[in-house]
Amino acid sequence: MEPRSLLRLLFLLLAALVLLLIHSTRSYLHLPNSPSTLRRPLLNSRPRPTTTVSSQSSHESDVPHHPLDPLTIQEINTARSIILSYHPFSSSPSSLIIHSLVLQEPDKPVVLSWHPGLPLPPRRASTIIRFLNSSYSLTIDFSTKKITSNPLPSSGYPTMTIEDMNSACWAPLSDSNFNATILARGVRLSDLACLPISSGWFGPQDEHRRLIKVQCYSAEGTANFYMRPIEGLTVLLDLDTKQVVHISDVSPDIPIPKSSGTEYRFDSVSLQDSHKTKPLNPISLEQPAGPSFEIQNGHVVRWAGWEFHLKPDPRAGVVVSAVRVTDPETGEKRRVMYKGFTSELFVPYMDPTDAWYFKTYMDAGEYGFGLQAMPLVPLNDCPRNAKYMDGVFAAADGRPYVRQNMVCLFESYGGDIGWRHSESPITGMGIREARPKVTLVARMAASVANYDYIVDWEFQTDGLIRVKAGLSGILMVKGTPYVNMNQVPKNEEMYGTLLSENVVGVIHDHYITFHLDMDVDGSENSFVKVKLEREETDQKESPRVSYLKATRHVAKSEKEAQVKLNLYQPSELHVVNPSKLTRVGNPVGYKLVPAGTAATLMDPQDPPQLRAAFTNNQLWVTPYNKSEEWAGGVFVYQSKGEDTLAVWSDRDRSIENKDIVLWYTLGFHHVPCQEDFPIMPTVYSSFDLKPVNFFEYNPILKSPPNLEKDLPICNAAASA
Amino acid sequence: MEPRSLLRLLFLLLAALVLLLIHSTRSYLHLPNSPSTLRRPLLNSRPRPTTTVSSQSSHESDVPHHPLDPLTIQEINTARSIILSYHPFSSSPSSLIIHSLVLQEPDKPVVLSWHPGLPLPPRRASTIIRFLNSSYSLTIDFSTKKITSNPLPSSGYPTMTIEDMNSACWAPLSDSNFNATILARGVRLSDLACLPISSGWFGPQDEHRRLIKVQCYSAEGTANFYMRPIEGLTVLLDLDTKQVVHISDVSPDIPIPKSSGTEYRFDSVSLQDSHKTKPLNPISLEQPAGPSFEIQNGHVVRWAGWEFHLKPDPRAGVVVSAVRVTDPETGEKRRVMYKGFTSELFVPYMDPTDAWYFKTYMDAGEYGFGLQAMPLVPLNDCPRNAKYMDGVFAAADGRPYVRQNMVCLFESYGGDIGWRHSESPITGMGIREARPKVTLVARMAASVANYDYIVDWEFQTDGLIRVKAGLSGILMVKGTPYVNMNQVPKNEEMYGTLLSENVVGVIHDHYITFHLDMDVDGSENSFVKVKLEREETDQKESPRVSYLKATRHVAKSEKEAQVKLNLYQPSELHVVNPSKLTRVGNPVGYKLVPAGTAATLMDPQDPPQLRAAFTNNQLWVTPYNKSEEWAGGVFVYQSKGEDTLAVWSDRDRSIENKDIVLWYTLGFHHVPCQEDFPIMPTVYSSFDLKPVNFFEYNPILKSPPNLEKDLPICNAAASA
Repeated sequence: MEPRSLLRLLFLLLAALVLLLIHSTRSYLHLPNSPSTLRRPLLNSRPRPTTTVSSQSSHESDVPHHPLDPLTIQEINTARSIILSYHPFSSSPSSLIIHSLVLQEPDKPVVLSWHPGLPLPPRRASTIIRFLNSSYSLTIDFSTKKITSNPLPSSGYPTMTIEDMNSACWAPLSDSNFNATILARGVRLSDLACLPISSGWFGPQDEHRRLIKVQCYSAEGTANFYMRPIEGLTVLLDLDTKQVVHISDVSPDIPIPKSSGTEYRFDSVSLQDSHKTKPLNPISLEQPAGPSFEIQNGHVVRWAGWEFHLKPDPRAGVVVSAVRVTDPETGEKRRVMYKGFTSELFVPYMDPTDAWYFKTYMDAGEYGFGLQAMPLVPLNDCPRNAKYMDGVFAAADGRPYVRQNMVCLFESYGGDIGWRHSESPITGMGIREARPKVTLVARMAASVANYDYIVDWEFQTDGLIRVKAGLSGILMVKGTPYVNMNQVPKNEEMYGTLLSENVVGVIHDHYITFHLDMDVDGSENSFVKVKLEREETDQKESPRVSYLKATRHVAKSEKEAQVKLNLYQPSELHVVNPSKLTRVGNPVGYKLVPAGTAATLMDPQDPPQLRAAFTNNQLWVTPYNKSEEWAGGVFVYQSKGEDTLAVWSDRDRSIENKDIVLWYTLGFHHVPCQEDFPIMPTVYSSFDLKPVNFFEYNPILKSPPNLEKDLPICNAAASA
Repeated sequence: MEPRSLLRLLFLLLAALVLLLIHSTRSYLHLPNSPSTLRRPLLNSRPRPTTTVSSQSSHESDVPHHPLDPLTIQEINTARSIILSYHPFSSSPSSLIIHSLVLQEPDKPVVLSWHPGLPLPPRRASTIIRFLNSSYSLTIDFSTKKITSNPLPSSGYPTMTIEDMNSACWAPLSDSNFNATILARGVRLSDLACLPISSGWFGPQDEHRRLIKVQCYSAEGTANFYMRPIEGLTVLLDLDTKQVVHISDVSPDIPIPKSSGTEYRFDSVSLQDSHKTKPLNPISLEQPAGPSFEIQNGHVVRWAGWEFHLKPDPRAGVVVSAVRVTDPETGEKRRVMYKGFTSELFVPYMDPTDAWYFKTYMDAGEYGFGLQAMPLVPLNDCPRNAKYMDGVFAAADGRPYVRQNMVCLFESYGGDIGWRHSESPITGMGIREARPKVTLVARMAASVANYDYIVDWEFQTDGLIRVKAGLSGILMVKGTPYVNMNQVPKNEEMYGTLLSENVVGVIHDHYITFHLDMDVDGSENSFVKVKLEREETDQKESPRVSYLKATRHVAKSEKEAQVKLNLYQPSELHVVNPSKLTRVGNPVGYKLVPAGTAATLMDPQDPPQLRAAFTNNQLWVTPYNKSEEWAGGVFVYQSKGEDTLAVWSDRDRSIENKDIVLWYTLGFHHVPCQEDFPIMPTVYSSFDLKPVNFFEYNPILKSPPNLEKDLPICNAAASA
């Protein structure tokens, strides 16, 4: 045999070994380090554990205490046993792949009527399974050990398992043409790093099987392989069989960008660094008396009058439930929101060419926004005063595993002012009143391959909830033959910005759609647009020509509540309880207050936009329907857009004085710039849920000022 | 004499005494406490000093060190002497009123060519004076002691002095009809608190004299007299003669709202408080090794590679100048912005009736945004680690005074993330890199009567400057006969929200217009709109129907740079240096990134909107012109809108590759809600100046992570 054929054989054997490992029932957590060592030996010199196998460990979440508590390790094990003995799975348990195994929350009235001290309502699990190339949606009752089958969506596939993604990365290596192409590009197979890229849906040809596209990078000389694309090479794979369906290689002559300047790990950049700026003196949020919040039984958080249930979720990331706030006047705990979470993301790239057009990610439904949420880094992802919460998820084989430190909770004070007033010299009253603004942040950060999404639920003492998303991580870049803009022909379309030699940051959008089941002082609420419009005066009566007039429009049905924000036709967006009035007769409410955002400009008939039609408006309001949680549908993977929020809303159901759900989409246009290379400074945006005539008066009127005597006494750092 | 006549006489005498005091050459700082004690004896039980008379004190700003340093105490005294001996003022020095006395900054090239070690360029002062009912604009040269006269605007009057405002509040008391009206409302004159309200301009009838309107409140039983309006009573005064021109009393039957529930001072509310929530544990930003910034010679700030000049200003509040940032790669200090400040505010109320239509405040040009900036409250307005800067201003008599703690500077860390990346299980590389986000904040807070505006200039380590405005303080409310919404006739216009019994919070807008003289790597810059537009594909070539395409449009002249933001026609707004390219050939730039904002919806021909036509667009770009600093014109008071940014911009001057100035307006619509009663939780919004291909790569790539060993060791509070 020739040396080249030998090499090919060696890799085929290796690939087969890997596939064998993947198809075993062991979770990815049990995968040996060797394949990864083989791929990127340099990078694994200091492996760090990301998760802990804990089927034997005694975890604090072993016993559920609240109807909304996630499945415990024991419940996941029990559910797995029930599933494995269920016909037809019992006939071939090794063919079973569990795509999702989570708590099936009790019906809303059951949860609302429960209170501590009462026994928990019956515990059930909900599971999505692939078995012999078919999907199953099942409910498992823990008390009866019975399984019931649920109807399936008409199109699409379940969220990928981590094992799907891993195996997709390896599968191309079983194809000799692929390996030859890689070697022809001058990349050693041991330096190869590949990414599984959801292929979207672009017509009927894609419907009959689970497909994925794989693109690869050279990790030679850098941990930041994302900056070294093997441009134009796309492998189409069957996700169930792991067989290569097609290889496309449209730009074999584009060089792989250099590795220098791409590192971001501190150990690596500090070695290279010759112009290191003087580090800042330490600054720290200090609470020597400890935090003011408590986490009861692992999930119920109480702080400054707030109470809510917080849990990690493999698809949504975190779920905030049963949010109540204490009325400072009566001491009553009042309902604000039943459930809030990241329902879906949509990240379309703006390059229609062969290797890019399909990059239209839906990170929650395709990849699992929570599955991709890695352990937070203490002192850096969250401040020193943070407490952490673990996620307990099920692997593809149904075994439980613990994602440590997946969520953090901390009190924040950055120097902002809660309220203030000084009397000016005009009145000479000498009043100087100010209150510091302290908030409580619940944070998670998902790393969906290159991109990092930080999601904060920030609770303020004044009754406001700020939902904040931060975008960081690494760009998805495109190889280009050019090293300078002066080489680019005048009319050549770049689809982005030249960030470094041979590297283009491709323009893309991010849309994050939040499910916000508001329950303002009860479940029956109405959505009111308070329109602000110019009113012309009768100029005989006023020297003014115009003023701004507010009029209230109660949305009767869903279509009236489809909102496209417009700076020139502004509305306040209220959720009110029409049956509950304040002392002076205003309906109690919360309003959704957008901040910076972006709107999708893609053609509504573009296939990715059809699938992500839930981004067509910034706000929608639907009547509560337990099955309508995921804005892109339950089975988003390769979905055709038949089961999106847009489809539901177009039914135009009645929403007046009903249990209603708000859906808000936070958008970002991202035209990359060189400052985003090789890793992006975080860009934040947010929106607020803000009390509007919910309280009789300013709920932080009586909060005390900071006094020197209450502040900590701090000494220099331990190392000083 | 009847007792009533006696009382009237007594108050006439008192008023005369006050007017006499005001017309003396002594500054308001020297006013005895007695008038205020007379008015609100309850409130002055614990007077706190707001300012310090310091003409004798040795202040650190006694010697200027930088061409942009504000006038020192000694320079103000010198300027006053020169002014007093200037003909014609020397003939009647007691008739002289100094409305403004500030540094006349040297020409920009002079400042740019100066560097430490060189002698300061010649110091000059600029002053605006009223003398015998005429205005003067003069320049004083300190070396020659010469005064030169400058041309005056064609309409309008100078910013009011504090003494104008004070005397206006007292002048109505000299009118017996006014006093009778007050007593008829059941208000004791000793409980009266009045506000000077700029009367705007509503036609030629208002042009020939300086006018102001005065409205009053009852301060009985509360420091928060703003919540107790004597509704419908408006006194029109001549500001120069202090004579009552007209009294309007349109709604004598509207009751004065109650005092209960209106207090906000901690001492007062804590006494009333029966449902006090448990206070939060202390939280503090701690820096045991001290802050990382230095303030050189009182005004030059250096931090994390940033260098800028910071100074208080009586009209703008604070001025940030000569902003440079260190390039982390070359160590070079690179120019970013020559000068940034709050140029004007516009606050129109949306009620066209007699007592409200004219409330269309322009707080910088009418009241002096800096004049109204009171001392910040340590630990509450600014965190414990803050440093403070005083303002040195001239009173109406030309004497200097010190506004202590007017500006604070502090490093902020609220737990946000500078950048992060985790490798997901897909690649198994175990990377967990994150960096905390620490910023430097320069803050001032102006209390323009009821409202408090917080302005933050926040410098980030990644080269971004965030300009943030916070709105707090107290609403301007309207009396109403109604105590509950169920009493309001269906079609009755409220112009706002019923906040409490007999109290309506009137709808209003806030516009804050910033002057941003960007100098990106030099003065010659261009403004580029990077338009993002849908591009339809050739569907034979791509399965995608559409994508978002970015095209660069360089604005040739001013009209091309008048920007109305639109979510559906988005543009990035770049200031670039066309002569300076990055290594890969992108023009270096900064972009202005709006966040939440509001657009004016008033009729462009409405007189207040004509005067505030600078708010007609969110962004304007003008060629640098030293005389174009104040968006509403130099003389805003009673201006007709003849000298606004809108007028300048319509000249459509060339702006390509020129020294250009950006003007951005941050807007807020405010429909009050009960949570704003009796004092408003702060509402924040902001915009960013963000490097875009300014740096070759992420400038915080090499910043170190937080390590436990560097953090402070803190113990319980001192009082524990």
